[in-house]
Amino acid sequence: MSEAQRLHGHLIGQQGSRRSLNTPALVLDLEMLDRNIAEMASFAKAHNVKLRPHSKTHKSADIARRQMEAGALGVCCAKLGEAEALGEAGVQSLHITSPVVTPQAIERLIKLNGEVSDLMVVVDHPANVEALATAAAKAGKPLAVIVDIDPGIHRTGVATPEGVVELVQQVVKHKSLKYAGVQFYCGRHQHIVDFKERKASIEERTEYLKGILAMLEAAKLRPAIVTGSGTGTHFIDAKLGVFTELQVGSYVFMDHDYNVCDLRGLDKPTFEQALQIDARVVSANKAGMATVDAGLKAMATEKGPPVILKGAVEGSTTRFSGDEHLAVIAPEGKAAPALAEQVILTPPHCDPTVNLYESYHVVKGDTLVDIWPVTGRGRSR
Amino acid sequence: MSEAQRLHGHLIGQQGSRRSLNTPALVLDLEMLDRNIAEMASFAKAHNVKLRPHSKTHKSADIARRQMEAGALGVCCAKLGEAEALGEAGVQSLHITSPVVTPQAIERLIKLNGEVSDLMVVVDHPANVEALATAAAKAGKPLAVIVDIDPGIHRTGVATPEGVVELVQQVVKHKSLKYAGVQFYCGRHQHIVDFKERKASIEERTEYLKGILAMLEAAKLRPAIVTGSGTGTHFIDAKLGVFTELQVGSYVFMDHDYNVCDLRGLDKPTFEQALQIDARVVSANKAGMATVDAGLKAMATEKGPPVILKGAVEGSTTRFSGDEHLAVIAPEGKAAPALAEQVILTPPHCDPTVNLYESYHVVKGDTLVDIWPVTGRGRSR
Repeated sequence: MSEAQRLHGHLIGQQGSRRSLNTPALVLDLEMLDRNIAEMASFAKAHNVKLRPHSKTHKSADIARRQMEAGALGVCCAKLGEAEALGEAGVQSLHITSPVVTPQAIERLIKLNGEVSDLMVVVDHPANVEALATAAAKAGKPLAVIVDIDPGIHRTGVATPEGVVELVQQVVKHKSLKYAGVQFYCGRHQHIVDFKERKASIEERTEYLKGILAMLEAAKLRPAIVTGSGTGTHFIDAKLGVFTELQVGSYVFMDHDYNVCDLRGLDKPTFEQALQIDARVVSANKAGMATVDAGLKAMATEKGPPVILKGAVEGSTTRFSGDEHLAVIAPEGKAAPALAEQVILTPPHCDPTVNLYESYHVVKGDTLVDIWPVTGRGRSR
Repeated sequence: MSEAQRLHGHLIGQQGSRRSLNTPALVLDLEMLDRNIAEMASFAKAHNVKLRPHSKTHKSADIARRQMEAGALGVCCAKLGEAEALGEAGVQSLHITSPVVTPQAIERLIKLNGEVSDLMVVVDHPANVEALATAAAKAGKPLAVIVDIDPGIHRTGVATPEGVVELVQQVVKHKSLKYAGVQFYCGRHQHIVDFKERKASIEERTEYLKGILAMLEAAKLRPAIVTGSGTGTHFIDAKLGVFTELQVGSYVFMDHDYNVCDLRGLDKPTFEQALQIDARVVSANKAGMATVDAGLKAMATEKGPPVILKGAVEGSTTRFSGDEHLAVIAPEGKAAPALAEQVILTPPHCDPTVNLYESYHVVKGDTLVDIWPVTGRGRSR
């Protein structure tokens, strides 16, 4: 039984039970989550593009199922371990968006391919194509591969248009591999705050992608799937109409970093901040400030300190105060929250924050309605 | 069975098996660890001060036991959940260094007090003293409390000398509480890089502490335990001779941030960087750079990117490349590591890095010799 189930299972369904949670607790607002899922699903339908949401954001089989019930084809996974975790939990359609290259990982990949109905994995290197083809041939079930194209980030992907065509040609030679399509993920562009600037840079990158697709077409290697995009550029990408499916991830929860981006040029947020952290004041001995029990170990920190959603006077700010604590600072002359009071925070970056927790505390309003495991927690290998 | 046991249990004892680990993997060099533990133990003995090492660094029952076998009184825990986890794993002497204030947490604290032989917890607020006294009285076993003194950080602790005396007076009135001593932790001073500057600031703070101890003495409330200090100031604190015991944590593993601090004024590191992260190259399509499989989810990030210990040419640097990836950049004109090659990193900040993993891969040289659970992983409430 999980720690959350043991400590809080008895609170499920009790009105107002969110206030009784031991803290820090990762809390998910179910109504916001469902509105976010519905919004993206209807957007995709209206724009005639498919959704394969990225599960690296939530690492949750429960949320993956909700996304698929709303029409998603399946989910993307950043790592093999994440795909194994979701596969074990019954999610059958999985696309691994990073290369799987070592012998020990390829062995696990082939095993997973035998266990789930629909698995795809990216490739970006000739040696890896050979290794996957050999392993898949031995196992007897073809492995679907997506050729990853570097959009200029130099993280993963084939670096040149000619290289893409060559790698696809190598893939199609192997009977044990199935050439499923291409991937083009402009990670760096997702977070450009200004809508017009983001649009211009994506249009430029899409021209580059179109050039590669034309070369593939000319070589009779047209990809069935063109996958990529993200929450930051989904609106622009859908309008451009090149992708057949979108790998949007963060939209389910949203974080500050994305929330300040004008996603659709509407000058207002499209999605709601469904992911929250409940904390409690554990020390309050200095006027105007309090210390709560959520520090560096309770959230990702590389995007700065969290924002206060509830539990402190307006204008209060936060400052990390070590591994286990956060300072809540009231504006000049105002009172900070008192000892043992609840403070609700929104995390600065959702994906690595979720990875710190074993469970979601699912709430409706102020009531705990369910506890969901973070299925792929820490499954980064 | 843990993921690490399932994937790597068969590698234990196989010569050179570290190279076969699925990555990213948290790796602990056993010989370095044991040398670090032995060094601190002999230092404390020579300076006639006791050790109660802080387990928030390692969250490991195996390491806590090793520290106690080397002479430590017990361990400190930052949070109640950490103490519960170590208690369940058989560690019987636990001091919780942050206040436990909510009704639900106090209930758990009192239960734990009945389960382990030796538990202490800090208090810094009159309302909390009353709540603990009432709960302990009901349970029938006295609860040992340590009065936490704010050294000027304003994180936890009583803010004034007079307040300390008053809180101790309140504690001793309650039969259900045992006044065990005081805590004074100068967290901010631990990381001052320059030895002389650190020494001067600690001497100034120690004068403040001495003033409070004199007031307690005058009120016939002399504390049996004066606990505090850390890896950064242990040498200075031990020489000053005010603490009866030291809460040193990071010395077991060490990280860059501490390693650049001249701990003993010797201008060379005292402890070894026993904690490492093994990664693998998953993409290598750009001259002079490679992408490895350890990103924001594989280590704490607030102290900057990790340092390369092994697996890349000298002078190579790293840059975070998203949630799951890290760029390894070779110096101008040099080659980056090739696809699937192993790169060994040392994490920028050990404590929150450990918290991301379910297991330690314990190695001697290049051989996996054991797998230890991160007993208190995520047990932050």
